[in-house]
Order: sequence, then structure tokens, then C-alpha cells
Amino acid sequence: MVLVPKGFRFAAQAAGFRSAGRNDLGLVVSDALAVAAGVFTKNRFQAAPVLVGREMLENRATARAVLINAGQANACTGDEGVRRCRDVLRLAGAILDLPAQDILPASTGVIGPQLPMDRFEAAVPELPKVLGKTTPIQFAQAIMTTDAYPKIAWREAKLSAGAVRVLGVAKGAGMICPDMATLLGVVLTDASLDPAPWKALLAKAVDESFNKISVDGDTSTNDTIYGLANGASGVAATSAEDAKALLDAVTEVCRELAYLVVQDAEGGTRVMHIVVSGAKSDADAELAARTVGHSPLVKTAVYGRDPNWGRIVAALGRSGADFDPNQVEVSMSGIRLFAHGRPEDVDFDPLLAPRLTRQEVPIHISLGGGPGRYEFLAADLTHGYIDVNASYRS
Amino acid sequence: MVLVPKGFRFAAQAAGFRSAGRNDLGLVVSDALAVAAGVFTKNRFQAAPVLVGREMLENRATARAVLINAGQANACTGDEGVRRCRDVLRLAGAILDLPAQDILPASTGVIGPQLPMDRFEAAVPELPKVLGKTTPIQFAQAIMTTDAYPKIAWREAKLSAGAVRVLGVAKGAGMICPDMATLLGVVLTDASLDPAPWKALLAKAVDESFNKISVDGDTSTNDTIYGLANGASGVAATSAEDAKALLDAVTEVCRELAYLVVQDAEGGTRVMHIVVSGAKSDADAELAARTVGHSPLVKTAVYGRDPNWGRIVAALGRSGADFDPNQVEVSMSGIRLFAHGRPEDVDFDPLLAPRLTRQEVPIHISLGGGPGRYEFLAADLTHGYIDVNASYRS
Repeated sequence: MVLVPKGFRFAAQAAGFRSAGRNDLGLVVSDALAVAAGVFTKNRFQAAPVLVGREMLENRATARAVLINAGQANACTGDEGVRRCRDVLRLAGAILDLPAQDILPASTGVIGPQLPMDRFEAAVPELPKVLGKTTPIQFAQAIMTTDAYPKIAWREAKLSAGAVRVLGVAKGAGMICPDMATLLGVVLTDASLDPAPWKALLAKAVDESFNKISVDGDTSTNDTIYGLANGASGVAATSAEDAKALLDAVTEVCRELAYLVVQDAEGGTRVMHIVVSGAKSDADAELAARTVGHSPLVKTAVYGRDPNWGRIVAALGRSGADFDPNQVEVSMSGIRLFAHGRPEDVDFDPLLAPRLTRQEVPIHISLGGGPGRYEFLAADLTHGYIDVNASYRS
Repeated sequence: MVLVPKGFRFAAQAAGFRSAGRNDLGLVVSDALAVAAGVFTKNRFQAAPVLVGREMLENRATARAVLINAGQANACTGDEGVRRCRDVLRLAGAILDLPAQDILPASTGVIGPQLPMDRFEAAVPELPKVLGKTTPIQFAQAIMTTDAYPKIAWREAKLSAGAVRVLGVAKGAGMICPDMATLLGVVLTDASLDPAPWKALLAKAVDESFNKISVDGDTSTNDTIYGLANGASGVAATSAEDAKALLDAVTEVCRELAYLVVQDAEGGTRVMHIVVSGAKSDADAELAARTVGHSPLVKTAVYGRDPNWGRIVAALGRSGADFDPNQVEVSMSGIRLFAHGRPEDVDFDPLLAPRLTRQEVPIHISLGGGPGRYEFLAADLTHGYIDVNASYRS
């Protein structure tokens, strides 16, 4: 059973942005005004809904709804794109009987074309008819593009005054390399808390989840995570322990969603779970982990079920991380392959073969005796990725 | 006709490092002691021949020969690897009647295994029998690994006292993303000049050629370019004009070799010729060019003959380069696709289709009105790359 936080309802419609008959317009409404926060892409080219949503949250840290369309990114659409984004919100506000400034926008899909207003005009009036009848899973399906499956996760957090629920929905499978925020997602909770701590909590959870994954190293123009806390549980986070419990729940929801995104990587067959420890600093560990996770040679080796530690150490060596090569240890799927500057003197292939067929491939790297550590999830690089991306636009 | 600088002879042998019967050991000998310089990988994991060759050139800036084997990288082989590298040079010195410290080593191939000394012991004694009978093209073929074709280029430079020749030979098709040096190559000239200017000249030429290409962003542990200037032409570079003429010839040779490497990229079908101009600084232009050239989404789009400017601007936006998105212009194959924050309002696909079938795809990007500029060559990302690299080791 999906635990839905109190006071939230969903709607989805087929607006014709993508293939006919497929839901591609999603709406979530909070019955009460919710404390709202957002984390946005750091790409210099920012899509119109990113510009609009960011500005809205700078002016007021509350919202009633999030409206997301899939199929059109409304990115690189200039002033006209911003105008259309606002027009869509005005239209939705009138139909839903909400102030337009209480509806946060998000878009995902092809970069360049202007939003087709006639399709919004036809589809938005249908939303109230299904509002509250649509499940969170159907909402998650409505915001998918190249995603193979809907991405949804939930937790309950026990605060001192009672239980609150956290529900997260995300989409994303390609152009995934979060910088500050990533992809599209909505995190909902019925906990009650003030704007500033909610904003800080969301940013921290995103940093520990979506910001530590990569499909292809390409950061999107539309990455957005919205967080709505509507207080409908009547339970407030009052103590430091409460804040920690809520942070843990939101972080776990975001991590599960982030994992689902990497698992659904375009053409992906494996999730590389890269853990770098023993680095001189966390920054060195991060450099090392990201370089390994982005290396096309490592990614294709994992796809080929090849325990190719040579490509891993070559990537470490060019990463810019500070370490002594003789102290480096590398293991894959729990088996140490490289230490003291040399490969282990055993043919581990018979042991590794069955482990490398698993969906998750742990890659543990120790750079020495330092305190620095970083975890990173990355997809493999496959024929399927080439299939999807050599022909996406056409 | 290949213009071979005076006083250099080549040899090649099948040593059995790779498939049986295929030449995989190459030797070039200068009849006279040559001024020698080297440019090496900046990867922290440095192969034994890189460690040995670098040390040799620190001690003395002269050499008589370069010995290169393909099939075994002698990387991540520890002290034993260094010992075997030196043993090979001693063996070659004894056979060729040269001081071992006058023979520079290089290796390319699989990372990890120790050099098979018995194969050197069998093959090296055969080298004198073919020395001088082997052509530079056969030498270039002997040092190939996943290369589809030999890479060789030459120029004549007219100095004030006469003409000198420059010949370059390189290998490389994967794990190509030069940092300071790249891949394996030898640049030979019969010009006469001192060690310091030759070293500086070689470094500059490499920086303008091999350091501006990428196949997959992965920098090898073995990258080495050796330069030998033996003075056999009797022509010295005496004036600033002479130095410039020789630099131009060496740079042109290196650029042609670098182009051949990208053209031979593992699985590659296109060479992206990326030119970024109008940046606030050269460093901003470089960041932008490298990010576009490394973007898997841009690389797969080029493979799919898709003029996907949206992926190019998304890559620019995450590159870290400083620019105003509204001033960016992007053109592919000579046709402007994006300006003033918007795509051009014309369907250029019919014009672009034939141009994108060409081997070279020019991508010109202007970031504004600044003086910064950078050129970069990158390969596309293809099914063939996955084929090669998901199964290279096995």
C-alpha cells in the first residue's frame, strides 16, 4: 500500500503532448496551503518553468499545487516560453479555483518547441473530474518520458507528537547528472513545519540522494524537485529529534527515487554502487567516485560483465584526486582485485562471473588511510543507451 | 611518398604479444645520437615504461632509439614491471650494440600482466635483420592495438640554411583523452637543435594537437610522445623564423596524427570539430568545448545524424563556462541552429541531412563577444564503441 500523506489529491490526463491516449499531464493538489520549497538545476540554460517556479518560491514559500507536463520541456523558448508557462498556470488556476500563484509549474521532454496551448486548453478542464480519483502511481506514470516505469517511494516518520507521512514521486532516465538538483520530482508530507527548516531539509535530502547519481553526466535544463508540507497530519516537528526523523524519512524517500532513476537509466542494465573511502578529503573521494562513474570504459566494462579493474585505476589516476597509487585498493562485487599497485595474483573470474550478472555492481575503492568518503550511483553504458539517444528526437 | 628524415631506420617484428604472426614490436633507430624529448601522461597510475622513459630523459636529453611493444601495457606491474622494462632495454642494447640508456621504451595494450620476457628474448634478436628494410608504415602498423589503420604524417620545413623533414607516427583509438600528453607517438626530425628548444617545441606542438582531442574522456596510463632530432640534415634552426617554421611543421604533423586518432576512434563514425569562440577567456572556451565533446548525449546525436542543438546548449549550460545564455549561437555543419536563446525558426533538417552524413561534423559555438577561443576534436559514441569495450578483455 502506498502511504499517501493526508490532504493531498492527484489527477492525470492525456493531453496529447506525447503519443495519443497516454497520460502526460499530472497534477497534485494540497487541500490546505502548504509550505513549499524547490531545488532547481544549476544549468545556465534554465527552462521557463524553472525560471517561473524559482521566482514564485522567492516571493512566497507556500503553494497549493504542482502541475507537470511530460513531452515538452519548455526550455530554450525565451520570453514567449515564460509567458506560456504563466498562461498555463492562470488557466489551471481558473479551472481549479486556485490562485495561479499557488500552482508550481514543471515541464519535461523535448527542448525547443513552444508549449501547445490548445492542448492545455483541452486537457486542463478535465483535471477536476479525476482529481482525487487518480492514484499516486498513475500520477507518476503521467510525468514519465523515456522512463520505463513510474518512480514512487514513501516512508512514515514517528515524531514526538505522532506519525507523519512522506511520499515522493520522480521521473528521469536520461540527461541525468544532478548538479544542485536533478530531474523532476515532488516530495509531499503532511508534517507541519516552517518554510525555512523545510527548505533546508529538502535541500539536504536532495544533496544526499539525487545529487549523487549519474546516468550520462549530462545535467538537464529542467531539473526540479518541489517539496510541499501541508501540515494535514496535525503533527509538527518540534524538537531536534523530530527534525532528524523527518529528514531521515525524506532522505530515504529521495534515495529510493534516485536509485530507481539510475536503475531505469536509458538502456541501462546495471547500477554501479561506487563507494570511495580512505581519501584525504570528501572532495577527493567525490572526484574519484564521479570520475569512475562517468568513465565510458568502466561503464562499458560493467555492461560487458568484465571485472576490468585496469580501467577503474586508470580513471582514478586521471580524476585529479590526491592519493598514493600504492595505497589504492579496488574491489568489485565484494572481491578485491587490486592492491599495493598490483592486481591480485588470483584468477577471480569464476567467482565474479555470477556476481556481475546481478543488477547491482558494488565497486569499493580505498584511496588510503584518510577520512574522506563518497558514495555515488551510476548506470552502465550499453547498446540500449545508443539506441535511445541516437534516435530520440526523430 | 613518405618523407623520412635523414638518418633514421625502422624495424618491426612479430613477437607474439598479440595474435600470432602479426607485427607487435617496433623499433626506430637514429644513426647518430639524437636530441630527445618526451611528453608523458599525467595519470597518477604511470606505466613502467613511462616511469623509466621519463627518468632517462631527466638524466640525459639524448637517445639513439625507441622500442615499442603493442599488446602489453606494462602498467600496474609494480617494481617487477620496471625491472622487466629495464631488462628489455638491456637486451635490445646488447643485440643492437647500443648503450641501453640510449633506447627509450614504450608499451601499449592490456593493463596488469607482466611483460613476457621469453617473447622479447625470441623477437629482439630478429630486429637487426630487418632494420632499415622496414618502412615507417610497417613500423606504424607494428605499434597498433585496437587501431583500424596506421597513423603517420610528415612535413618538410624550409629553414634558412635548407630543408628539414619531420615524420610522426602514432597509435591510439580508445582510452583517449590527453591531459598533458597522449597515446603513443614518435616524432622524428633531421633538424639540428639543442635539447631545451626541442623539448619546448615538442611540448607546444603536443599541446596544440594531441591535447585537444577526445575519444572517450579516458586518459591512459601509458600516454607517451617521444621526439628525436638527430641533425642528420646538417641544417640547424638558427633564427626565430627557423624555430617557427620547425614548430609549424611539427605541430602540423602532430595535428594530422591527432585527427587520425579521433577518426579511428573505437566504433567512431564521425569527427566532431568543435570550435568555441567569443568566450570571456580561453579557459571558458575550453570548458565549453570539452563539455560538448564529452557529452554522451551530443555524441550519440551526432552518431544518429541528429542536429540536436538542445543537447549542445544543455551541455554548455552545465559546463561551468561563464557566459550569457542569450548571446549564445550554435551552428552545425555550417548552419546556424540556435541564437538569442531560441532555436532558429526554420526547419533546417533537409539541409542538414546530407551534411551530417559527412565524416566531419563542424560544431561552431559563439558564447558572446569575448576573445576566448578553443578548438577540440571528439569522436561520436556508437554501437561499435560498446561492442569494442564491452568485450575488449575477453
